Amino acid sequence: MTETFRAIDVIRKKRDGIELSQMEIRGLVDAYTRNEIPDYQVSAWLMAVVLRGMTRAETAVLTDAMLRSGEVLDLSALPAKKVDKHSTGGVGDKTSLVLAPLAAAAGVAVPMISGRGLGHTGGTLDKLEAIPGFNVNLPVEEFRRVLQICGCAMIGQTAEIAPADRKLYALRDVTGTVESPYLICASIMSKKLAEGIDGLVLDVKTGSGAFMKSEKDAAFLAEIMVETGERMGKKVVALITDMDQPLGNMIGNALEVVEVVEVLRDRGPADLRELCLELGGWMLLLGGASKTLEEGKKQSAALISSGKALEKFRQMIELQGGDPGVIDDFKRLPRSQSTMPVLSPRAGYISAMQCEQMGTACVILGGGRERKEDPVDPAVGFVLHKKVGDHVAAGEPISTIYYNSGSRVQRAHQLLETSCQIGDAPPHSQRPLIHRVIGAPVEKN
Amino acid sequence: MTETFRAIDVIRKKRDGIELSQMEIRGLVDAYTRNEIPDYQVSAWLMAVVLRGMTRAETAVLTDAMLRSGEVLDLSALPAKKVDKHSTGGVGDKTSLVLAPLAAAAGVAVPMISGRGLGHTGGTLDKLEAIPGFNVNLPVEEFRRVLQICGCAMIGQTAEIAPADRKLYALRDVTGTVESPYLICASIMSKKLAEGIDGLVLDVKTGSGAFMKSEKDAAFLAEIMVETGERMGKKVVALITDMDQPLGNMIGNALEVVEVVEVLRDRGPADLRELCLELGGWMLLLGGASKTLEEGKKQSAALISSGKALEKFRQMIELQGGDPGVIDDFKRLPRSQSTMPVLSPRAGYISAMQCEQMGTACVILGGGRERKEDPVDPAVGFVLHKKVGDHVAAGEPISTIYYNSGSRVQRAHQLLETSCQIGDAPPHSQRPLIHRVIGAPVEKN
Repeated sequence: MTETFRAIDVIRKKRDGIELSQMEIRGLVDAYTRNEIPDYQVSAWLMAVVLRGMTRAETAVLTDAMLRSGEVLDLSALPAKKVDKHSTGGVGDKTSLVLAPLAAAAGVAVPMISGRGLGHTGGTLDKLEAIPGFNVNLPVEEFRRVLQICGCAMIGQTAEIAPADRKLYALRDVTGTVESPYLICASIMSKKLAEGIDGLVLDVKTGSGAFMKSEKDAAFLAEIMVETGERMGKKVVALITDMDQPLGNMIGNALEVVEVVEVLRDRGPADLRELCLELGGWMLLLGGASKTLEEGKKQSAALISSGKALEKFRQMIELQGGDPGVIDDFKRLPRSQSTMPVLSPRAGYISAMQCEQMGTACVILGGGRERKEDPVDPAVGFVLHKKVGDHVAAGEPISTIYYNSGSRVQRAHQLLETSCQIGDAPPHSQRPLIHRVIGAPVEKN
Repeated sequence: MTETFRAIDVIRKKRDGIELSQMEIRGLVDAYTRNEIPDYQVSAWLMAVVLRGMTRAETAVLTDAMLRSGEVLDLSALPAKKVDKHSTGGVGDKTSLVLAPLAAAAGVAVPMISGRGLGHTGGTLDKLEAIPGFNVNLPVEEFRRVLQICGCAMIGQTAEIAPADRKLYALRDVTGTVESPYLICASIMSKKLAEGIDGLVLDVKTGSGAFMKSEKDAAFLAEIMVETGERMGKKVVALITDMDQPLGNMIGNALEVVEVVEVLRDRGPADLRELCLELGGWMLLLGGASKTLEEGKKQSAALISSGKALEKFRQMIELQGGDPGVIDDFKRLPRSQSTMPVLSPRAGYISAMQCEQMGTACVILGGGRERKEDPVDPAVGFVLHKKVGDHVAAGEPISTIYYNSGSRVQRAHQLLETSCQIGDAPPHSQRPLIHRVIGAPVEKN
């Protein structure tokens, strides 16, 4: 902390809506990371940021200060271009497990550092840990080795990466300062850019199961993330994609691994397949493995149908200590003791789903955490037999719950039962899967 | 803390601009007073209050919750009506020392709990302590006894009174959340209403030496304080008074005691006299000692000219352990070692004074505190020989500095030298001393 830096001045300035200088933002982040200013000052500043906002320049400086608070991976020894994908979180979103091996199979390196389930959403690390033995806590050197051999590796945030974000996130969580696009942007981008990547594909979810319910809010977040990435010299594209119902049919950690393998076997539900090909196409384009988005999508489809993406997945599981046998035998994955159907109370068409409520049902079953310290049960979740637009008969199962606790299943059943809206006619129009692309020229197919 | 109360929910609600319920505000204040919620949550909430504001109902509930966090004095054994006066702080504002004995001489009881200097402003306790032996830290029982005998007593805040305000004020001071009229109102009113008073005269300062520089801000604060007091069943009136130049001619703790005695001897500067009679008139009116404001002012003037107010002051000093001899012999007050004149650089008329800067000069001399733990030097300060509108010759002294430290006097001299604006002609118009009266019918003289 320089002699002239005073946290109180930075708080007051932001409170009064005045743009902060680079020195002020860096001073605050650096001092906080070194425990030189107290939580109560930072939380007041965070609330001022939530209510006053930030300019693009401030957002970029905050991101950079958080990024530089820790280690930035140097992957220059790897000849391949490094590209990552990040999703803002949803229900049933397991695309990362498909995309990392898929892009690696195309020769694009994917050094993916992921998170755990947050609120009603699932987390990539929790899904990977459903595979017996899979280690998401590799030391950086081991992460680098797996990446070198296989072209992709998936781990959790290390203590060395963006420590400022860890401290800030924990504080935001308990002070009502999570919901700011500027702070969300800085948190995501500081971690992703610390991976030493060349390009980044952002999947910004919108709809009832997303954190950004409205497309407008999602697009705004996407814009500032793309601009922040570009200011830092990275190729960034953001897709606004639909999260008004779960993605795919399986929700729950082990169940989602099953669906990932299905997609990698050139099967699986249409929406999940489509989104994987779209995001994969962009990853290949940003990674230089294809010249157009269309070519990237075709190549992604080919890597799946040839089985090459699946073989990469197998190799990564093996290198990270997991049991690759789960790919050929789903019974090697954790399985719940019991199942229970959720029946339709009437005949009609599914017109809408309360997607956040459905995600909460999975958390209640034990598939996510109600408190940070809760263990996760990899076996539980639910499988959807119907999606929005489908016809359903009275008494027909809409979904099947996989559970291990009789007390939990009652609450989850009630949430799932009330989360589907059933109308007399099919809905007038279906929401598109890809709402918008931000940050790169939209190519026509 | 009830099981259903969660601080995070209250923070989020205020952040989103939703009115808080009585239970939520009380829950927060009570839990914070009992150290059950951390500073970092309260500071985030305070910043949300600063930026989102509060409704009148919320402000009243917050005031009441802070008031009830500690002891409320029960002065019902005292037959007289209890009235207090509170100023939002200024430079040279020593009216409390005149008004407490004046109102007591009229039979109105004044249980005055005051503060110390804050920022560039002086504090009543610091002024009283310039009187050798004067004890502002009386236990409540002794406070009550002095009040019973003499009709007035002046002490500092005790640990028992509004402990929530002490905690909140300390946190606001370091988190940029002082400047909110709602929080200022709750802080002032919770302490004043804890005195068990029937009526309160508020002196809300405006101008270059006040915390509220604009009359609009001062009037808004006055309005919410009056409404809050009235909601709690008290008679409250607020006067918006001028603080665009120091009040009276003497600034500094012992010097101000001198000027107080001068006023009580029916002398002293016109502006200070006028404000004392105006505020005294209102105190007598609210305390039932007079039927109209005009009558109250006349009575106040008579209590001064008869020497009765001065005798009350003498009695109070004696009862609180001070040396009443200072009244007859100013040499018994602390005196500085040296003096230094501040000369006018040119001939002309004083057109304006940077009043806050002049207050800061007094703080730098040692008359106030730059840090909370600094001791106060009662002897230092300055005496103004000229006020706004006065003619001054080139090289004529505008003021005289009373100092004890050669290093400090240089900085103070520079501040005082640059704080007076001198023009060729007298200013077009003088600012009125009383800008507005809020909360009671304005009576015509």
